[in-house]
Amino acid sequence: MAVKFAKRLENAEGSAIREILKLASNPDVISFAGGLPAPELFPVEEMKQVAIAVMEEQGRAAMQYSATDGYPPLREAIAERMNRKLYTDVTADSILVTNGSQQCLDFMGRVFLDEGDKVIVESPSYLGALNAFKAYGPQFIEIPTDGDGMIMSELEKALAENPDVKFIYVIPDFQNPSGRTWPIERRKQFMEIINKYEVPVAEDNPYGELRFEGEIFPSLKSYDTKGLVCFFGTFSKILCPGYRLGWVSAAPEILEKFNISKQAADLQASTISQMEIAKFIEMFDLDAHVEKIKEVYGHRRTVMLDAMDEYFPEGVTFTRTDGGLFTWVTLPEGIDAAQLMKDVVLPNNVAYVPGEPFYPNGGNANHFRMNYSCMPDDKIVEGVKRLGKALTEAIEKL
Amino acid sequence: MAVKFAKRLENAEGSAIREILKLASNPDVISFAGGLPAPELFPVEEMKQVAIAVMEEQGRAAMQYSATDGYPPLREAIAERMNRKLYTDVTADSILVTNGSQQCLDFMGRVFLDEGDKVIVESPSYLGALNAFKAYGPQFIEIPTDGDGMIMSELEKALAENPDVKFIYVIPDFQNPSGRTWPIERRKQFMEIINKYEVPVAEDNPYGELRFEGEIFPSLKSYDTKGLVCFFGTFSKILCPGYRLGWVSAAPEILEKFNISKQAADLQASTISQMEIAKFIEMFDLDAHVEKIKEVYGHRRTVMLDAMDEYFPEGVTFTRTDGGLFTWVTLPEGIDAAQLMKDVVLPNNVAYVPGEPFYPNGGNANHFRMNYSCMPDDKIVEGVKRLGKALTEAIEKL
Repeated sequence: MAVKFAKRLENAEGSAIREILKLASNPDVISFAGGLPAPELFPVEEMKQVAIAVMEEQGRAAMQYSATDGYPPLREAIAERMNRKLYTDVTADSILVTNGSQQCLDFMGRVFLDEGDKVIVESPSYLGALNAFKAYGPQFIEIPTDGDGMIMSELEKALAENPDVKFIYVIPDFQNPSGRTWPIERRKQFMEIINKYEVPVAEDNPYGELRFEGEIFPSLKSYDTKGLVCFFGTFSKILCPGYRLGWVSAAPEILEKFNISKQAADLQASTISQMEIAKFIEMFDLDAHVEKIKEVYGHRRTVMLDAMDEYFPEGVTFTRTDGGLFTWVTLPEGIDAAQLMKDVVLPNNVAYVPGEPFYPNGGNANHFRMNYSCMPDDKIVEGVKRLGKALTEAIEKL
Repeated sequence: MAVKFAKRLENAEGSAIREILKLASNPDVISFAGGLPAPELFPVEEMKQVAIAVMEEQGRAAMQYSATDGYPPLREAIAERMNRKLYTDVTADSILVTNGSQQCLDFMGRVFLDEGDKVIVESPSYLGALNAFKAYGPQFIEIPTDGDGMIMSELEKALAENPDVKFIYVIPDFQNPSGRTWPIERRKQFMEIINKYEVPVAEDNPYGELRFEGEIFPSLKSYDTKGLVCFFGTFSKILCPGYRLGWVSAAPEILEKFNISKQAADLQASTISQMEIAKFIEMFDLDAHVEKIKEVYGHRRTVMLDAMDEYFPEGVTFTRTDGGLFTWVTLPEGIDAAQLMKDVVLPNNVAYVPGEPFYPNGGNANHFRMNYSCMPDDKIVEGVKRLGKALTEAIEKL
């Protein structure tokens, strides 16, 4: 067959990491490689009642086409919730409902990126975002991070050197993969810098509400006075991912381009999914549900960090995260976490995600990501114990 | 704000037609401009039972992430149905579940098109496909059509002159907008030509099953010996659009690229929507449901064509369609259907979709599209009568 594909596919990720993760799906393996929410917390009975109510009250409308920008009561509920939880001041008009926040990432590339354009990201950054952007062939500029997220002096330097940056992509809360959160002072510095350079920002915030201790931090969007911040939210982590619903909240000029993209890409998000999520928020208490998730994940986080303290060897550090789904482990320089996984970790029937793919320009192989949201305590302890043994062996060989 | 968007947005459609259609949403207007399935036929009670069954039997799985290529029992059901109805011989492995067939159109552009690449389409062609492809900046080569669809000698000439065509996009059954269907002989000629030139084909088939008289025609995919045909299907017209589920069936080499696109674009189609549609097919009789749709739409088609015979003036012709949702009206040369709509048609409280936007390179303003699927008999007759009056006035003024 003489089929010739588009050049953009040459940017598509190879599947080296997927190959490794396939091995991790062996049922004997305790895998910390996933990023799944805990299904035992899904409000199944409630969603059954919601489905019945939607079909009885507005079944025909639920099964029909609907507006590209989304179901109005859901957009209202999203805006109300953002304003109450994340200190924003947005209206339903600023919101487009998408197929999970992954679609926001794709649209961000689609709306802003021509081949070769520059994008600033945290180093490391979320793999799914990097892959979404890569389809549009950008250059990635990585900004170094510390325990408090992106280092602002480095960001300012990069923007001064690259006035043509198209946008900045960040996860300020419980970042995937690093588990790190930007302090409030750093958020304010960031907004000063982006207001000065007037560069659009994609604020990806799937985990902000999942803070185990203390108050939720204000989103970057809450400090946005110039309409530069595109806020990406999702129901995947605060309710469930199976309905594939997320959203973008953005300034009218940008939102219009997202709407045009949605129309061309798939017309609209599922009418019935939107009505059901809106109905859940109306009939039940999403805030109380989030509290339950936080309690369980917060406990599992503690179990994991305590086990790491006990079983990980000297020289291995990790993020003491206050929320979200992940912690991030740093090995001594010179250890390649992907190689280690094949050689020692998987043979010990335990798995993580090697860190290098989270760095768009490569390197930094001495990291890996660990997920704690989706596993019972005893398995977390047993898995970390196995991992500690593997890491100890590897470090002794250095 | 100094925001700079991607060049591809310059290709995005202006909203001239959307402005006209906004006027048509006045409740006094009888609008034939839509393309909605009839909501009174949606199996609401059945889908409620399906939702209950899915939540009771596998609620946690339904609310969780699932595989990018789709829910295996749904992919099985789709393949079985395609093979039984459309004479194909495909397996579940060849199928990726998408957000309606609109997403297949977007992925076709994403997978094949670089800026300036050539795409062959029927003249006229489906507006939603043209808009999806336009995001990738192609050149459109329009192939003239007659009452039996694309003219094969013209296709062969175009391919001989343009060996670098990236793909051909066609709707052989009850085309949107023309309502025309390719006879079997023409399908065979088409496949001979594309096998000779080895050019990929997007066969968009949302209406093939909705044939009111006689047997369903074999799909192009059923004649595909070289893996060149990408078949796009959807549940929107045979069940309902609100779940946003469609699919592509393609050769492995191409399907892999669609899968990579899906992963980057939005990870996967809704788990719960997929489980519910699969469950509907298991618990109820989708074939019988399609029969019911055909009966109602076939009747409305007859009512519309009879009314057109009665009320349309000499010199106006239209497609005597055997299926699908649309007929296509041709006015005498020199009448601009968009202008006519503003000047005479809307003031008579009736509406259609002006034809010019269905021609990617413009021109052909003397056509419009009429939808009959979503309106009771008396309104169809009254609307056609009003339209006949407006057309008679316009022709008299010529």
